[in-house]
Amino acid sequence: MLRAYSSQVSRLLRVMSGCGLTASPPSITSPGAILGNKRSYSNTSTSPKTGIMMLNLGGPETLDDVHDFLLRLFLDKDLIPLPAQSQLAPFIAKRRTPKIQDQYAKIGGGSPIKKWTELQGAKMVELLDKMSPSTAPHKFYVGFRYANPLTEDSLDQMERDGIQRAVAFTQYPQYSCSTTGSSLNAIYRHLTKTSSHSNIQWSVIDRWPIQQGLVQAFAQTIREEIRRFPEEDRDDVVVLFSAHSLPMKVVERGDPYPQEVGATVHRVMEELGYSHPWRLVWQSKVGPLPWLSPQTDDVIKGLAKQGRNNLLLVPIAFTSDHIETLYEMDLEYAKELGSEVGVKNIRRSAALNDNPTFLKTLADVVYDHLQSNQPCSRQLPLRCPLCVNPVCGKMRDFFTSQKL
Amino acid sequence: MLRAYSSQVSRLLRVMSGCGLTASPPSITSPGAILGNKRSYSNTSTSPKTGIMMLNLGGPETLDDVHDFLLRLFLDKDLIPLPAQSQLAPFIAKRRTPKIQDQYAKIGGGSPIKKWTELQGAKMVELLDKMSPSTAPHKFYVGFRYANPLTEDSLDQMERDGIQRAVAFTQYPQYSCSTTGSSLNAIYRHLTKTSSHSNIQWSVIDRWPIQQGLVQAFAQTIREEIRRFPEEDRDDVVVLFSAHSLPMKVVERGDPYPQEVGATVHRVMEELGYSHPWRLVWQSKVGPLPWLSPQTDDVIKGLAKQGRNNLLLVPIAFTSDHIETLYEMDLEYAKELGSEVGVKNIRRSAALNDNPTFLKTLADVVYDHLQSNQPCSRQLPLRCPLCVNPVCGKMRDFFTSQKL
Repeated sequence: MLRAYSSQVSRLLRVMSGCGLTASPPSITSPGAILGNKRSYSNTSTSPKTGIMMLNLGGPETLDDVHDFLLRLFLDKDLIPLPAQSQLAPFIAKRRTPKIQDQYAKIGGGSPIKKWTELQGAKMVELLDKMSPSTAPHKFYVGFRYANPLTEDSLDQMERDGIQRAVAFTQYPQYSCSTTGSSLNAIYRHLTKTSSHSNIQWSVIDRWPIQQGLVQAFAQTIREEIRRFPEEDRDDVVVLFSAHSLPMKVVERGDPYPQEVGATVHRVMEELGYSHPWRLVWQSKVGPLPWLSPQTDDVIKGLAKQGRNNLLLVPIAFTSDHIETLYEMDLEYAKELGSEVGVKNIRRSAALNDNPTFLKTLADVVYDHLQSNQPCSRQLPLRCPLCVNPVCGKMRDFFTSQKL
Repeated sequence: MLRAYSSQVSRLLRVMSGCGLTASPPSITSPGAILGNKRSYSNTSTSPKTGIMMLNLGGPETLDDVHDFLLRLFLDKDLIPLPAQSQLAPFIAKRRTPKIQDQYAKIGGGSPIKKWTELQGAKMVELLDKMSPSTAPHKFYVGFRYANPLTEDSLDQMERDGIQRAVAFTQYPQYSCSTTGSSLNAIYRHLTKTSSHSNIQWSVIDRWPIQQGLVQAFAQTIREEIRRFPEEDRDDVVVLFSAHSLPMKVVERGDPYPQEVGATVHRVMEELGYSHPWRLVWQSKVGPLPWLSPQTDDVIKGLAKQGRNNLLLVPIAFTSDHIETLYEMDLEYAKELGSEVGVKNIRRSAALNDNPTFLKTLADVVYDHLQSNQPCSRQLPLRCPLCVNPVCGKMRDFFTSQKL
């Protein structure tokens, strides 16, 4: 996600801001005002009653979409607060576009995240219509933060569709202010800006790190991938759960992400009967400032030095394929680094994508949530103890005050 | 544990070593050679068959024991590798003794950890003798790293007792190289130094972060403590799971501790039905270098600013009371800091100490381990990916090659 954010740019920003990533709040600029958004919603269905907005970062569908994707990302002050953000973001986005286009070119010319999210959503609502007739018909909406269909446009579409009951369903199983928090802040901003949305009752699925079906689906993909190692090497496999890293500045504020990823990892290993040794490692760090570690690439090098010849990378914090699996894990880590350090076998377990257990899980998570009649988890109302973003407080007040 | 290690001393060390806590390996010095150890073993039992060594850091029983405790701690190169350790450790220990004596004076004149460990051990073997007649009689041994009864002395006592089967049972539920790893390295060093130990079959309980009884015991103590808040405030409580922090240098090598603590926390909240919002926070950081964060005291201040008036501190990474609960959490955080920032209610849940569910758990963990007939967990054989301590590799080879 933040691969777009180079150390070069980071150094420039440090010089400009004098204080690195934690600069003073930037002026507010709407991505739409700069970009002129094109498209909005996703699937069609007649007279839906319950709308489920699937929140994710999104990705550029084509190489031509890379620039706008990066621009939206760098304009997101919930993700990266920059000084003079409305001026700086276009500069960084333009500068970074060729390199990121090159990466997307190497994975087929674009991100598959919209394809997977639409497939997942279609199956989810099909199941939900059977499981929960009282809330049917259900319709899914794709709410991407940095790519079409954008969250804001899908919110408008829900309104036009006459949705009565809406669920903001994060597709990040573990909560971080940088991911789910940013999406929820975007929803809060849009809904409170446009009074016409007042008739929709909202609730939030803000995290599901140890949901049983999720854990089972991860365990399945790991078992399947271990079977693809040569038989004589299978017992020797080290499982490296690799999650997107976060700047320590975010962690130090009390972001719950590292704890929740740790919980997912342990539950998956429990499901596997602790069949292999493992580590939780962190990928995609950029820039010179400290991030969560150890880093995936350093760990691969270190284990190779120790003579560990069979490594399995498991993407544990995203549910669909994206550039961090297809480019970073598959090409940079498994292919290039794996050859460089001479590891015998280095593989990556499949993203959940269209895994049937996972598709059923999506429906289960929403079903349980609708049954609970709760606006959100008990955890969401608690801001990070050292939070510096006032919108995070207002967003929480907005969702917890919904009358269901 | 590392409270003894002041920022003043840390700065001195940085100047001396030129590279902070990760100095080059020091010369090997035995604490026994400097201290002249006094006592050894713990409980008595006739002709024990199975010996269970309960590993922990230990603590000074009296104020007079503080100096030797500190000296052993600073001599532990598995915990804090220092330059010229055999010279520097006595210097630091002497300098720090008065301040640490003062802290122990304020909690009754010494650490209660030996009292609690002996009570726990006695109940554990009483239960085990009934649960597992084939391995009875069982005898527990206290193996402290920095206080009497020292691990090395208890190992000798096991030999004298004619133990056939020995279990090294860490009392830290979550594994860190700084805690359990240091104790296991100490056992490895002693056993391979003295050939007479060759007849004992060893195995290791190296971690048990989500053992069901442990989780239930934590949940009980939390429920009980929440009931001690005024009735009208109970729903407003924020649960702060506070674990001993670690230097990021250790975390960056791939120490599994943060992931495993995250797993315990989530399992406990699941057991509680996610009744309250929570955070995992880290205490006892010392020195100027980065440690795991957010820090417990910063979090208390931050939540107070947000108007959070009801905080519950939960010691999640130790099982008995010790200076970090009785002095740091109760006096420094709850009493002093709580008053300073004006939190209405700030309480600490009880350590597990003599909790009956926990005492039964200790026996269950050992019983399951003996039944499994495995030398250790599947996780232990994997060194930290960026490990710099060769003993960690040898220790693992030693335990995994035991014939059970």
